[in-house]
Amino acid sequence: MFREKVLKPRVSIVCVVRKSIIVMLGPAGSGKTSLVASLGKWIEKKQLVPVLYVNLDPGAPYTPYAAEVNIREYVKVEDVMAREKLGPNGALIRSIELAREYLPEIVERIGRSPKPYVLVDTPGQMELFLFRDLGVEFVEAMRRVGYIIGVLIFDHLLAARPQDVVSLRLLATIVQLRLGVDVIPVINKSDVSSETRERLSRALSDSSSLLEELKSERGLLGEMSEKVVGVLDEYRFATRVPLVSALTWEGLEELYDMLHEIFCACGDLT
Amino acid sequence: MFREKVLKPRVSIVCVVRKSIIVMLGPAGSGKTSLVASLGKWIEKKQLVPVLYVNLDPGAPYTPYAAEVNIREYVKVEDVMAREKLGPNGALIRSIELAREYLPEIVERIGRSPKPYVLVDTPGQMELFLFRDLGVEFVEAMRRVGYIIGVLIFDHLLAARPQDVVSLRLLATIVQLRLGVDVIPVINKSDVSSETRERLSRALSDSSSLLEELKSERGLLGEMSEKVVGVLDEYRFATRVPLVSALTWEGLEELYDMLHEIFCACGDLT
Repeated sequence: MFREKVLKPRVSIVCVVRKSIIVMLGPAGSGKTSLVASLGKWIEKKQLVPVLYVNLDPGAPYTPYAAEVNIREYVKVEDVMAREKLGPNGALIRSIELAREYLPEIVERIGRSPKPYVLVDTPGQMELFLFRDLGVEFVEAMRRVGYIIGVLIFDHLLAARPQDVVSLRLLATIVQLRLGVDVIPVINKSDVSSETRERLSRALSDSSSLLEELKSERGLLGEMSEKVVGVLDEYRFATRVPLVSALTWEGLEELYDMLHEIFCACGDLT
Repeated sequence: MFREKVLKPRVSIVCVVRKSIIVMLGPAGSGKTSLVASLGKWIEKKQLVPVLYVNLDPGAPYTPYAAEVNIREYVKVEDVMAREKLGPNGALIRSIELAREYLPEIVERIGRSPKPYVLVDTPGQMELFLFRDLGVEFVEAMRRVGYIIGVLIFDHLLAARPQDVVSLRLLATIVQLRLGVDVIPVINKSDVSSETRERLSRALSDSSSLLEELKSERGLLGEMSEKVVGVLDEYRFATRVPLVSALTWEGLEELYDMLHEIFCACGDLT
């Protein structure tokens, strides 16, 4: 029944008929939740498209967006800690296991919504989503609902050294392999000095100078990185890395354009 | 002062003069702590070498090994939750930040120990160690104390599909890039059916059939994976992936031999 609704959305402003689903990923503390909130607001305000916010983090008691579908309606980490007498680590893992049981209902609720854009916030600790079954199962189930793109956020402090930018691109490739979705890596919290911003932009747009530096510093490891990045470039995997800021909204238009391009090329076109 | 002790260890049974340091890494729930315990026991029993156990997880109230140096002497996640009124996610991130302050003391205590082998258990959530400053700073400081090798554990369920084995090797490369140490990827919990074990062994020893499967399933992504794995193979990065079991001790000798080989080739030789 919800399939019908998906195929007949009330809004036709976007080019896809099925839903456009963005799954926000990134290591703990990289700013996933803030970016979900600001990207959502940006899309609503600038594209006039209604956004459905989904929270899949059983450990986030507060979100700066109104989550219409929220895993915490079913599982709360603090309840699991108390009920099962677990420490925070164990309770987080257990909560993610419990959350899997509610996936069918969650996916159905998302499918029933008339909103064409879906922003999905994932567990604070990325590995609980990426390296356990929850992520793979959620993405598989969501394929019936729409086209999915992963956005992988790194904090700018995590991209300070040349090897870190290579790491970000490798992690984007892991997400792509594990979840089977396109991934756009972004660097968040660009609300830093213009000097840092410029240095980062240079490093991200010109991978050759970055790799030269790595080669001279790290020898064989640098050489290997150069070849791996060469392969990723050849297949255009995660080539453009936009700098975004949840605070100043900088870079959100560039990110939206990149998302839109993939949705229109790969999603069902009208 | 502790440098002197490091250079004059009481035990000369191993080939290195400086300490042999193993940092255990892996996604949440992959079995880091159990492997630290069983590998440590194996080394003590079979190699007759004293092992120093170090726990860097502020969220592990109990460890199956006797941690002589323990971050929980300084920071406990549950105290941080109560004191700073944080949820489990926030408290884990905050604890890791607080833990950084005690690194100099922890490294000094490790250096002062006469034990030549050091097994380091890391935070339950790998990304807190790998994608924040704690990991890089700890490894940098520990270089004065000895030679460091990372062991990266994946649960066998995480290596069920061809793309997962490629992911494991990419993650090992990220660890190598971020921390600047050699990394041995292992697959844990091989205490499964002999059928599963055989399938895994085949997939791990013969990457070409694995990549063929990936190519036919995933098209361009599979092709790209093949080339990336080709580069890693060429540089001999993470080529052998032993299957280990913390429960039955299977594979521990193979892992020890691989570690020993790197320690003897790269550490200070006697």
